[in-house]
Amino acid sequence: MRWALVGPGAVGGLYGGLLAVAGEEVHALYRSDAAAVRAGGVHLRSPLHDGPVPIVVHDSVTTIPPVDAVLVATKTTANAALAPVLGPVVGDDTIVVVLQNGLGVEAEVAAAAGGRGRVVGGLCFVCANRAGPGRTVHLDYGDLTLAAHTVDGSAGGRTEAVDSVAATFTATGINVHVDVDLVAARWRKLVWNVPFNGLSVVLDAATDALLADPSVRSLVVELMGEVAAAAAAAGRPVPPGFADRMLTMTEAMVPYATSMKLDHDAGRPLEVRAIYDAPVAAAAAAGYAMPRTAAIAAQLRFLDRRPRAAP
Amino acid sequence: MRWALVGPGAVGGLYGGLLAVAGEEVHALYRSDAAAVRAGGVHLRSPLHDGPVPIVVHDSVTTIPPVDAVLVATKTTANAALAPVLGPVVGDDTIVVVLQNGLGVEAEVAAAAGGRGRVVGGLCFVCANRAGPGRTVHLDYGDLTLAAHTVDGSAGGRTEAVDSVAATFTATGINVHVDVDLVAARWRKLVWNVPFNGLSVVLDAATDALLADPSVRSLVVELMGEVAAAAAAAGRPVPPGFADRMLTMTEAMVPYATSMKLDHDAGRPLEVRAIYDAPVAAAAAAGYAMPRTAAIAAQLRFLDRRPRAAP
Repeated sequence: MRWALVGPGAVGGLYGGLLAVAGEEVHALYRSDAAAVRAGGVHLRSPLHDGPVPIVVHDSVTTIPPVDAVLVATKTTANAALAPVLGPVVGDDTIVVVLQNGLGVEAEVAAAAGGRGRVVGGLCFVCANRAGPGRTVHLDYGDLTLAAHTVDGSAGGRTEAVDSVAATFTATGINVHVDVDLVAARWRKLVWNVPFNGLSVVLDAATDALLADPSVRSLVVELMGEVAAAAAAAGRPVPPGFADRMLTMTEAMVPYATSMKLDHDAGRPLEVRAIYDAPVAAAAAAGYAMPRTAAIAAQLRFLDRRPRAAP
Repeated sequence: MRWALVGPGAVGGLYGGLLAVAGEEVHALYRSDAAAVRAGGVHLRSPLHDGPVPIVVHDSVTTIPPVDAVLVATKTTANAALAPVLGPVVGDDTIVVVLQNGLGVEAEVAAAAGGRGRVVGGLCFVCANRAGPGRTVHLDYGDLTLAAHTVDGSAGGRTEAVDSVAATFTATGINVHVDVDLVAARWRKLVWNVPFNGLSVVLDAATDALLADPSVRSLVVELMGEVAAAAAAAGRPVPPGFADRMLTMTEAMVPYATSMKLDHDAGRPLEVRAIYDAPVAAAAAAGYAMPRTAAIAAQLRFLDRRPRAAP
């Protein structure tokens, strides 16, 4: 298959890079760092591959040839600017894989693609960094959950597009899970993201420090419960014991700086809309309030807006 | 009247200092800085007085003569250590004025005094700093609300002790308000303290920056509403429109670093128990949950426990 990679940062550099290493034809759109990437090449340091990556570097969407699939790995904060990029490359049959955090992001990407394409949601459980122009370091984890996006938000079941993407990523060495209900999968991921992303930024701490403090650990448990209750109110209950397992898993993890903390420390905008506002709004539409989640969202917006020193 | 001053910091230095300037006999208990205060003297810079203050300096409670009244102006974080200080100076008729923040603090002080004395709650609306050993700077405001403490927490009405203390402080030039219901007055003050004290520490910002941000302003409004609803549930409803007036008043204030932010910036422990845990517990006992208040309390405990650089 021929792929376009939009957003070749940490997540895009890893998953797009693994596709290229596995023999897929990958055309990546770089921006201001295109010249530096052309000069230095694309590189991936990962347990799955360590070395150069045969990605074709573009600095304009106009030079990208027709593709079978698009990997969208931008931050959700850039979704409003995606239309000029996706418009030229997404046709009716193009598969669009959305590797983003939060809720409702596939609808944003689908709108940016003019309603064309077969949109597949992708949830990454990964720790990766961008180490410079064209350089990605994959530190740990890497599992990918895939599920079909539907216009009305209902469970999409298994589709040919999802199965095709799953087979392609499985061939790269990544563990792939296919889910029949994208929105349910996104709510489950929020059970982790809502407490840990936000508190890691507000309290400037990694997961181990947050969980070592009994008061914050209780707050994490309450936030997880709030998200799980909101998911249930929205018709997507998480499995029994899911939050407890997330907590145990996180305690067993190495100290982990969340993606939002990495964004904040690097001076990038925070994904408050996708990770906080969207679930709060979805829960409110179902008649359920998320006061703790909304409080942390307000704190994050304050920190996001405050001028800060360059990284 | 003869007074003992326990806790001659910013608040004690101001209100105790004004008593001494007005002709009351004030015996203040200093600790490690007693020698420095003896050498340099006690000073107050205030719109009400600017210069030396005739306070008698002690470094041990044993040298303080019998007194008519005790002014307790320690931080609530020190209440568990008050018994050895109050025991020797508080008799059955001694007036004990508690100039502290939070809820339930008079009961703690009364217990430290062995159940003796006539306890009067004092709520200070003041901006003052300790500027060095024996030196207090009174920046702005200064109103004092006084009300009688009762063992069962019921409204104490006007008492001879409250009226006597009110008359004495009025003579110092301070605006004094007498309230017939101490617990109601304390809930009203929490409507301001809960949002602004906590958020100023968690977000490292003064009142003007907090209110200039629309998300945090909304969170302030929600926190005020949560405290007001808790007060109502606990049988002490705040007057209609009270929170709105607090907000308008705060917007009209000069940028204000809260007492909790001053404590945090100076490396002092935070008054989380009195200002957060006590109202959350009182509301819970009345069947009302305060999720936003409890979330901020957890964040404050984390920041309070984290090792930080010396001021």
